[in-house]
Amino acid sequence: MIDDESALNSFLQHFSALPEKKILVHGGGKLATTLGTKLGVQQTMLDGRRVTDAETLKIVTMVYAGWINKTIVSILQGNGCNAFGFSGADGNAILAHKRTGSVADYGFAGDVDAVNPELIKMLVEKGYTPVICPITHDGQGQLLNTNADTLAQEIVYAISRHYYTELFYLFEKPGVLLDAADENSVISILDQRLYDELKKKQVITSGMIPKLDNAFRAMELGVKTVVIGNASDLKEIIAGTRGTRLLNEK
Amino acid sequence: MIDDESALNSFLQHFSALPEKKILVHGGGKLATTLGTKLGVQQTMLDGRRVTDAETLKIVTMVYAGWINKTIVSILQGNGCNAFGFSGADGNAILAHKRTGSVADYGFAGDVDAVNPELIKMLVEKGYTPVICPITHDGQGQLLNTNADTLAQEIVYAISRHYYTELFYLFEKPGVLLDAADENSVISILDQRLYDELKKKQVITSGMIPKLDNAFRAMELGVKTVVIGNASDLKEIIAGTRGTRLLNEK
Repeated sequence: MIDDESALNSFLQHFSALPEKKILVHGGGKLATTLGTKLGVQQTMLDGRRVTDAETLKIVTMVYAGWINKTIVSILQGNGCNAFGFSGADGNAILAHKRTGSVADYGFAGDVDAVNPELIKMLVEKGYTPVICPITHDGQGQLLNTNADTLAQEIVYAISRHYYTELFYLFEKPGVLLDAADENSVISILDQRLYDELKKKQVITSGMIPKLDNAFRAMELGVKTVVIGNASDLKEIIAGTRGTRLLNEK
Repeated sequence: MIDDESALNSFLQHFSALPEKKILVHGGGKLATTLGTKLGVQQTMLDGRRVTDAETLKIVTMVYAGWINKTIVSILQGNGCNAFGFSGADGNAILAHKRTGSVADYGFAGDVDAVNPELIKMLVEKGYTPVICPITHDGQGQLLNTNADTLAQEIVYAISRHYYTELFYLFEKPGVLLDAADENSVISILDQRLYDELKKKQVITSGMIPKLDNAFRAMELGVKTVVIGNASDLKEIIAGTRGTRLLNEK
């Protein structure tokens, strides 16, 4: 929805109104791909992840940490939400390493090593709402492009030692679907057993699997609630009337 | 020097080594103009300031708040300096208003109304080095493009109530020159009287005047030292052996 100004505004209005302490982790929508095309830098996706060569790293850093992050922050500020936008390099918030060892070369793609919960806690306790983009660093001067879903999971895990946490994965679909073609087939409650079964039957396929693996892992690591749903339904998702709610078996 | 990777690295190494509490305010060099040209968005300069239409605002936000800010932060982090990069929108750090009333229309150009010294103080006291880009906001959801020299002056003024402050304006020349064509003609000490005289004789011309006006104003407002010089000479400038040192008459 980052690509859709009025949907973004409406979402950020609902988000601003949430009385709880909150953090927003965002990705880049299709804007990075659009800019890449305009600049003649071809964007390659591999298993749903962007291959990040040096030029693409520049593009995603400009789009995620620059345009999108600051646009979101200024809109939130206009709504009275004291947003503070940053990347994983800032204050060494999120340390990552360049992905190696996989069969494919993802370029400057970063996998998270450590989240600095003290920094996030300091900002949250002072009344700021962190708005975090998925650009991280390796601590040696190299910026890295990190998957936003994974980043959200790592951040919420890191702060779960300090706070009661709930994680909302917001995207363009109303939840996890039993039939990808039917938006009315949302699974309202999903536990690990049902998830494994649906994976085996290939009802849940590639696009959703990393998101759900992250989500179940987050619950194992202390996150109390995980809900997956459409960003336009934020209010209803929080009220528990829409989206797919994951259930921890324990 | 932002355009020159090895010069930037060397500068940031010297900057990292400074033991004092420090803040870096940066501009965008020629990178915004270069990106504008690549994207077919013509960049117009008026009295040395960029005319910021909607597309140009997007470009400067991507370049300043995204690529340059995060590149600087990651290099500083690699040098062991705990840098934290942000814009004026973040945490409502710098409130500005869209420039109006001037004969020319500068578009989304922002003039500073207020700097939030508490936010900067919080970060500095916690050991972070703020790295601030000249993108500000109006508090109503609009990002604005602000002159980096003016921004530096406003920030140092705001924190001069809390700290003993020194301001270093670093650019591509070795200081204020008596003869623009001769880099050896650096004026080592400049007071208001000499400045006024050199302005009258048109020895000091348009490019330097806003910078020097800002610098003298900063001194009036409580900044203890202002030095203008080449970014490559940071060490010597701080030692007092290079650059133009301004003298407060009082």
